[in-house]
Amino acid sequence: MNKINTVAVVGGTHGNEFSGIYLLRKWKKNAQLISRSSFATQMVFANPKAHEENKRYIDCDLNRQFLLADLDDQDLANYEQSRAKAINNQLGPKGNAKTDLIIDLHNTTSNMGPSLILLQSDDFNRKMGAYVKSCMPSAVVVFEDQVPVEEHFFLSSISPNGVIVEIGPQPQSVIRQDVLDWMEEMTRHILDYIELHNTNALPQLPASYEAFKYTETLKLPEDENGERAGMVHKNIQDNDFKPLHSGDPIFTLFDGKEVCWEGDYEAYPHFINEAAYYDNNLAMSLGRKLLIEL
Amino acid sequence: MNKINTVAVVGGTHGNEFSGIYLLRKWKKNAQLISRSSFATQMVFANPKAHEENKRYIDCDLNRQFLLADLDDQDLANYEQSRAKAINNQLGPKGNAKTDLIIDLHNTTSNMGPSLILLQSDDFNRKMGAYVKSCMPSAVVVFEDQVPVEEHFFLSSISPNGVIVEIGPQPQSVIRQDVLDWMEEMTRHILDYIELHNTNALPQLPASYEAFKYTETLKLPEDENGERAGMVHKNIQDNDFKPLHSGDPIFTLFDGKEVCWEGDYEAYPHFINEAAYYDNNLAMSLGRKLLIEL
Repeated sequence: MNKINTVAVVGGTHGNEFSGIYLLRKWKKNAQLISRSSFATQMVFANPKAHEENKRYIDCDLNRQFLLADLDDQDLANYEQSRAKAINNQLGPKGNAKTDLIIDLHNTTSNMGPSLILLQSDDFNRKMGAYVKSCMPSAVVVFEDQVPVEEHFFLSSISPNGVIVEIGPQPQSVIRQDVLDWMEEMTRHILDYIELHNTNALPQLPASYEAFKYTETLKLPEDENGERAGMVHKNIQDNDFKPLHSGDPIFTLFDGKEVCWEGDYEAYPHFINEAAYYDNNLAMSLGRKLLIEL
Repeated sequence: MNKINTVAVVGGTHGNEFSGIYLLRKWKKNAQLISRSSFATQMVFANPKAHEENKRYIDCDLNRQFLLADLDDQDLANYEQSRAKAINNQLGPKGNAKTDLIIDLHNTTSNMGPSLILLQSDDFNRKMGAYVKSCMPSAVVVFEDQVPVEEHFFLSSISPNGVIVEIGPQPQSVIRQDVLDWMEEMTRHILDYIELHNTNALPQLPASYEAFKYTETLKLPEDENGERAGMVHKNIQDNDFKPLHSGDPIFTLFDGKEVCWEGDYEAYPHFINEAAYYDNNLAMSLGRKLLIEL
């Protein structure tokens, strides 16, 4: 892994996830907080118009617009599709990006605590997870490496190294101090890690650590007309990253019946009952727990 | 207090507070759940257009449009102002209402648990609070009786007896089962109370109970340009209905400084960091604790 020369810290990719937006305001006044000696850091406010309207997005989810084919398709021209092209021009272009690493700051309404989502599991990222967890024991590391980085549709996939800082629980359009503090701390550790990597000064890291790997997404129950017919079971609510076994109740239908999970592995739900996922009637993501060895 | 002959159960006054909206759907299929022998119950979906757009409101907050002067002002004609007039026609008119009691169902992002907000403290309401608390020990009773009912701007002030069922914490645009269950249970106890009142069958109630009385609303800190300059202190977050004393930190400024509360009474914050209050840069409501004696 070569030296990281250019880093972008991105906030407000979703206009109603306030922590990153308010941290950008703070860092604009105190740029030294996110500066390090061995690389250049820039800040990007990704979706200012959605924030002005206090919404996740104006026309479509900005953080789903970064497939290479979509960036190349000039007919995709609504507000977020246009912002995606502008940001790709500023930080990319994807595939040959001038930015080596993007840190994209997000909030979730789910009880995920301070989570670091890594889009690939190479040595650099595995060590980043180890470093962040060693500095911040409450941190959770999730690998969404089910496809190569360049096949992801996330903003942070513009750069060859992209990470998502995902902190919750925080309702949309709210600033919680605990969540803001976690986001600032995790971002600081990531920047420190890059600096230590660049200067060959990494401390001894633990030989292994616990992490999660995305497996699948579950939908909310629907009736025969496609109407929402149930909700996340109260036993699951807020239990992000707690184990789920076959036969455990997972949904409660509005008529009172319970639906049990029938999977054949020990699953770890996360993004449980995330508000933004209702648009697509999604209930949660599932993952497997794994031991990352360095 | 005379017999209650007509009750309206209202949901969706705010389009992104989902519990009441989903309970209305359930009760439309099972009207017997909210029917009692001694009075007629009707259901009202107050702001369907805001719900379609997954927003609190289209043009302005519907639950602030029920002052008598505003209902009479035909120049107030945006969507919610028009809905207010239509609902006043359906359930009122305020001052001479055909509906004896309105139960308006709300969610908050604040950690208020199952709260019953009463707009007056007459014998009927004081006993309602006692009955609900005796059936549901986790319930909190708040009197917002700082003005007479007819001077309130809330929807439920159309009727001479109006109550607000306010349940949280629930992010906007989410259905939590625990919150839905609390709302259904509290509504059931209120309807049972009315039935018992009407039939002179009230059980022995406790001689006294703890409740809260609204005193004032605090704003989020602003700088000299009127920009938001801070957030609710992490010590206060989620501590709705816990005591606050002079000198306790209440806000954290974005530059890290703490702001302490300087009031001269033991205050009980609620609606702490409610998402919807950011529109007006409000941080929380304060109340006093009081003992209600029957």
